Amino acid sequence: MRWSQTLIPTMKEVPSDAEIPSHQLMLRAGLIRQLMAGAYTYLPLGWRAVRKAEAIVRDEMERAGAVELFMPAIQPIELFERTGRKDAFGNVLIQFEVKRGDRSVHLALGPTHEEVITDLVAHQISSYRQLPLTMFQIQTKFRNEERPRFGVLRTSEFIMKDAYSFGTSLEQLDESYQKMYHAYCRIFARCGLEYLPVEAESGPIGGDASHEFMIPADNGEDRIVRCTGCGYAANQERAATGRGAVAAMSVDGSGELIKVDTPDVTSIEQVSKMLGCDARRMIKTLIYQADGKPVAVLVRGDQDANEGKVRRALNVETLELADEATIREVTGAPIGFAGPVGIKCPIIADHDVAQISDAITGANAADAHYTCVNLGRDYQLETTHDLRDATGGDPCPKCDGTLELVHGIEVGHVFKLGTKYSDSLGATFLDEKEKRHSIIMGCYGIGVNRIVAGLCETQHDENGLIWPLSIAPYEVLIIPLNIQDDEVMSIANRFYDELKAAGVDVLIDDRKARPGFKFKDADLIGIPYRLVVGGKGLQEGLVEIKSRTAESPDKVPLVDAIGHLTRLMDEEKAKLAARVPA
Amino acid sequence: MRWSQTLIPTMKEVPSDAEIPSHQLMLRAGLIRQLMAGAYTYLPLGWRAVRKAEAIVRDEMERAGAVELFMPAIQPIELFERTGRKDAFGNVLIQFEVKRGDRSVHLALGPTHEEVITDLVAHQISSYRQLPLTMFQIQTKFRNEERPRFGVLRTSEFIMKDAYSFGTSLEQLDESYQKMYHAYCRIFARCGLEYLPVEAESGPIGGDASHEFMIPADNGEDRIVRCTGCGYAANQERAATGRGAVAAMSVDGSGELIKVDTPDVTSIEQVSKMLGCDARRMIKTLIYQADGKPVAVLVRGDQDANEGKVRRALNVETLELADEATIREVTGAPIGFAGPVGIKCPIIADHDVAQISDAITGANAADAHYTCVNLGRDYQLETTHDLRDATGGDPCPKCDGTLELVHGIEVGHVFKLGTKYSDSLGATFLDEKEKRHSIIMGCYGIGVNRIVAGLCETQHDENGLIWPLSIAPYEVLIIPLNIQDDEVMSIANRFYDELKAAGVDVLIDDRKARPGFKFKDADLIGIPYRLVVGGKGLQEGLVEIKSRTAESPDKVPLVDAIGHLTRLMDEEKAKLAARVPA
Repeated sequence: MRWSQTLIPTMKEVPSDAEIPSHQLMLRAGLIRQLMAGAYTYLPLGWRAVRKAEAIVRDEMERAGAVELFMPAIQPIELFERTGRKDAFGNVLIQFEVKRGDRSVHLALGPTHEEVITDLVAHQISSYRQLPLTMFQIQTKFRNEERPRFGVLRTSEFIMKDAYSFGTSLEQLDESYQKMYHAYCRIFARCGLEYLPVEAESGPIGGDASHEFMIPADNGEDRIVRCTGCGYAANQERAATGRGAVAAMSVDGSGELIKVDTPDVTSIEQVSKMLGCDARRMIKTLIYQADGKPVAVLVRGDQDANEGKVRRALNVETLELADEATIREVTGAPIGFAGPVGIKCPIIADHDVAQISDAITGANAADAHYTCVNLGRDYQLETTHDLRDATGGDPCPKCDGTLELVHGIEVGHVFKLGTKYSDSLGATFLDEKEKRHSIIMGCYGIGVNRIVAGLCETQHDENGLIWPLSIAPYEVLIIPLNIQDDEVMSIANRFYDELKAAGVDVLIDDRKARPGFKFKDADLIGIPYRLVVGGKGLQEGLVEIKSRTAESPDKVPLVDAIGHLTRLMDEEKAKLAARVPA
Repeated sequence: MRWSQTLIPTMKEVPSDAEIPSHQLMLRAGLIRQLMAGAYTYLPLGWRAVRKAEAIVRDEMERAGAVELFMPAIQPIELFERTGRKDAFGNVLIQFEVKRGDRSVHLALGPTHEEVITDLVAHQISSYRQLPLTMFQIQTKFRNEERPRFGVLRTSEFIMKDAYSFGTSLEQLDESYQKMYHAYCRIFARCGLEYLPVEAESGPIGGDASHEFMIPADNGEDRIVRCTGCGYAANQERAATGRGAVAAMSVDGSGELIKVDTPDVTSIEQVSKMLGCDARRMIKTLIYQADGKPVAVLVRGDQDANEGKVRRALNVETLELADEATIREVTGAPIGFAGPVGIKCPIIADHDVAQISDAITGANAADAHYTCVNLGRDYQLETTHDLRDATGGDPCPKCDGTLELVHGIEVGHVFKLGTKYSDSLGATFLDEKEKRHSIIMGCYGIGVNRIVAGLCETQHDENGLIWPLSIAPYEVLIIPLNIQDDEVMSIANRFYDELKAAGVDVLIDDRKARPGFKFKDADLIGIPYRLVVGGKGLQEGLVEIKSRTAESPDKVPLVDAIGHLTRLMDEEKAKLAARVPA
């Protein structure tokens, strides 16, 4: 491609509204332009990168035995009502009505396609002989993003590869899941990403039946906890801690239990301010309905309860914050004054709670708190649990190392769905004995444009992007130093033609511009290799070949240039390939 | 691909709700399944065909120098308001509001992307040096389809290649247009389609600045007029006729002009019924506002006025039906009683009108018509014009042949837009002298899934689909006659591996089913070549190779099978290639 015949609007200045490197660089390098909040056009350079990522994703999906199909973006709202996701998605689900003759039809834009594909399978698959089957598509997904930001990382439409597996047994599910997990590792490695598979909150099947694939990045919105010792990694929500149940179920507090007036002071922050105490000395008491029965969950004042952990600790299916009536019933007070002392429901507490002496809690009375609450004396626990998010400094649950907290960008997710969707949409199969069962499903997503944004976020220097060869919009950039010099252009064009003929993706900067300007743009758009033709070098029969990350260029005789470039590229390809699991 | 590992749900019965062959066959061959009215999932087989068409489209776009980008499907409604297309699209434009924090944001789903790309260009292009430029994308488009039908031919979302050219002059526009026109011919030829480029209604730039690419098909919804003599072809709306202006501006009618009472009888149909006369004896009088001035347009009672032709005949920019007040003013009567006799505005008439003697028309008075109106006696014309749609039997405008009316499916459209969008969205450039001008645009669309539906509609026999090699989901189908016979399967699998290794798209029917069943499915899904392994042939060391359209199979020794297949395929590819313009 000739620079003059495409659209690569590079920018010198850092756009003021771009907060993070990927957003800044994708704008500056002319990969994207904003149409409106949360909606970006991929310009030719950005789109080439996305298409290369897409091709790798497709290739690995097919290698793993998945077959491609393509479902409508527009879906009937009824399907979401049947699976309960209309409510679960809430404002994120984009819905609208269209007129069809006299009728009004209520539709949604697919945020993913569990409903549509399960409905399809419910109609097309009936026998165990047709299973297992994994199908995928690569498609624009729609989710209303309340607060779009971070460039293409958080937008209301994005390109997703979504795959769905269907099987007759947990064994088939395991096998499909493992194939997808393995394919994901290969995909991200081939894309040149540093990636980290982490355990994630799992569905009803339990176990470590869900993994997220993260790109560690300082500006990532996801929080990951990982152990540098044993390699254990999980998202913060899911991560266990190595903290154990507290042995002695009492604490030595010296203070006397005193009820203090705290009129209208209901939040941890307000109480802490009023009483001048550290939130770490407070016990937060949350009243939940667990499978319909009230339970008080205690965590330290500066911490939050992790509902997944609470649910697992209580071994219940449903868990939701109690309504005001229930809170009044068990505490005898309005919302904001709950505490463990004298509460009329079971109590479950995080490990850290049992370490607080002379704690401050609600008094289960309106406008009142207790100071100097002590375990063993003022309230009782039989044991303690891991009920809060893990964080940096916590002991590792798998070894004697310490967990660290890192940020990441989620690029993929594999999930054992079980029968949630097949149950609600009637996707069943007949087994060898003509007995009917629900089909067991898994789902597997990759944010295709996040692969590109993730690379931009993590692979750059002060001068611009540094693309891996596999995703680079072009592999080689030819820079003729003076386009008005016929000899320079004739040689540059010959290289261009030869590289194209050899199947190399090559861009030639045929703009009438100073060499310094072209070099700056070359670094900014980050093409892996640049080939400079002209100047003093050419008089000596040499061209300059430089990889984006090399300190200085190699000066190579004209006749060796293509061979030299090909060797460098082959080496780089081999390096990338070596990182891909077999 | 192994049949058992994908999803190809063939159907024996013709689905009752499928009206036309493509819809029936796409369902029966397992290419598509309906999600709801006007929304279809492309199953693996159908999607492979679409992807092959897409690849050819992309290849030819790039060959023609267009660069690919990708714009959001969700667009701000303001852009459509600025170009006036919000009203022009009406109910076809899918619109909705989403909540973003406290705000409500009004959005539309892109029916095409003139607005978005012109807005992009307005911001990114400023100099003649950046032009000409043609950009394209391949993307799902959304248009609310009031009456979805004909399978994937008329749906509310569809895959479109849309390209837009930007230039500084009409010469640049012409060049871009010609490149796209040529690319389209190559695309449809490579896809194995019989196609017909026809002149279509053009925009403000005039001339034959718009062409539609049609697939002639009995069930096509578009009407094309073409001359079998000289090859002239145009859509019915656009087509000229070879009828000439009438020389003698009078007709010999024997009847006396009589005003008859026709209370509340206003339509041609009602008058014809009441007076017992043929609609061909009536003159339809339509009052338009042409550039704001009233004019009466006369056509024969059984014909409709073609507004494009009227506009061109009057040489005006805007033409719309007059409101009631204007009609009262020029006719002195309410709507429904207009006629040429004594009307108070200029008259323009179609050629055919001047042939009607003793005509019946409105009397320009409430509840009254004239019978026996005669040109020259009762009203005057200076000349006549071509003001109605062409139809079969009309003389050709280019030769002395006769036009025939055929039906077609529109698969592509090239259009000279001019400055409509660049004017309304401020896309300008500075010329060599720093003078500002509007950028001159063209737009070029292809319905990618219509390529596939068009093939299914036109290339089949009573047994099923007949794919061209270039679009066929698979090129070769291997049928092992008995999958429980180890020798059969080992040979079939060896062929499968060898063909795959040779880059052939191959499907193997590894289902446990009777040969007759497999043969029926093979014909139905229409894979170009089938290779049958097993039975008596195998005992003699032979396999059967048959092209989908051959009467009987070739019996080929095992060792020659791949070579024989490859030869057949090469011949077929050469045949296809020979049809592609250079």
